[in-house]
Amino acid sequence: MTKKAVLLLSGGLDSATTCVIAKDIGYQVYAISFDYGQRHKVELQKAIELAKYLDVKDHKIINIDLRLFGGSALTDNINVPKNRDTESEEVPVTYVPARNTIFLSYALAYAETIGAYDIFIGANILDYSGYPDCRPEYLNAYEKMANLALSATVSGDKKINIKAPLIELSKAQIISKGLELGLDYSKTLSCYDPDDSGKPCGQCDSCQLRNKGFKDNNMVDPAL
Amino acid sequence: MTKKAVLLLSGGLDSATTCVIAKDIGYQVYAISFDYGQRHKVELQKAIELAKYLDVKDHKIINIDLRLFGGSALTDNINVPKNRDTESEEVPVTYVPARNTIFLSYALAYAETIGAYDIFIGANILDYSGYPDCRPEYLNAYEKMANLALSATVSGDKKINIKAPLIELSKAQIISKGLELGLDYSKTLSCYDPDDSGKPCGQCDSCQLRNKGFKDNNMVDPAL
Repeated sequence: MTKKAVLLLSGGLDSATTCVIAKDIGYQVYAISFDYGQRHKVELQKAIELAKYLDVKDHKIINIDLRLFGGSALTDNINVPKNRDTESEEVPVTYVPARNTIFLSYALAYAETIGAYDIFIGANILDYSGYPDCRPEYLNAYEKMANLALSATVSGDKKINIKAPLIELSKAQIISKGLELGLDYSKTLSCYDPDDSGKPCGQCDSCQLRNKGFKDNNMVDPAL
Repeated sequence: MTKKAVLLLSGGLDSATTCVIAKDIGYQVYAISFDYGQRHKVELQKAIELAKYLDVKDHKIINIDLRLFGGSALTDNINVPKNRDTESEEVPVTYVPARNTIFLSYALAYAETIGAYDIFIGANILDYSGYPDCRPEYLNAYEKMANLALSATVSGDKKINIKAPLIELSKAQIISKGLELGLDYSKTLSCYDPDDSGKPCGQCDSCQLRNKGFKDNNMVDPAL
């Protein structure tokens, strides 16, 4: 029997690569994406197209009104920083309060409902660039908590696994892995501040990291 | 300076008691309630009235579409069990997938946004009656995870505390504590299956526990 997995799917490079990795090792993928008042609405559109391209078993879009909480350049009218030093240890203003914690909690509810025990997330240390909720320590603590939260893991012999197969990889290694598995990266969008047609800005943290990843693979980003 | 706290507020007896305890020890309370497609809509109305009566600093209502996930008598068209043995170790069908995990995650985002570090939840072991996400082990694991999730706790010297002051109390002790602090329990509603006017059924798990709590205090429930 094919094992089910829930996957956090944005329109980006990392979650797309995570998806092809999960499928390659035999999972039936149930994707979940979030509409959280992103300034870059085109991201969600990309996620929908990507889910079709990746041929996932099901794709849920969850509405979350994070604007209630304010305080982030990704949802408020603060300018997205350009050409910032991505090695900086400061938490960037693009940080959304408790974002991965909320996303993973919905993924957990989805997993329990469909009887999945593996949750895939495209977090990686490089992309961390100051986001505390992309670190292995955080993901391990989340997994421990999740195993105490659910009926099936508390009263049964099941175990929730938070799987972050990209966690130790550089952007270049991620791209190399995706290419090896046949992923067409022109279907993905990583930019924090794309124009309305989905063209990346080329200068935000995310664009900088992505561009370097393709350059390290001696390639030009096929989304450009 | 008054310390801020976030409080998970339902319309029920436990969260109302938790609120008066938090206020009594000097917290400024920011309440958060959830509209998650409850069959008992009157619960949310009670929470709004209760927030006013308890004079909280602010009250946010968050929309969550848990019906997407299905699988619970509180949100689906399954009958709420009546006169069930509340000592049973079985997980009741009124269980909502990952509910407290989702609720606490929104509370965490809210806390970070307003600069609060204490989150109050009315969980208690008795009320556990089979819900894994009401147990101390779960709440401790949630707290550990939360402290790894936020900028302020990772890069600063702050610490998130998940406070469950009712955790070890019996229903009778909870009611006794609330009465001591002047709480009018006629403002609260605990029933899983009230009629449209908010009258409790008297027979669901929650009504059974509540009735016993008032009886043990030699009282009749003032909400009846």
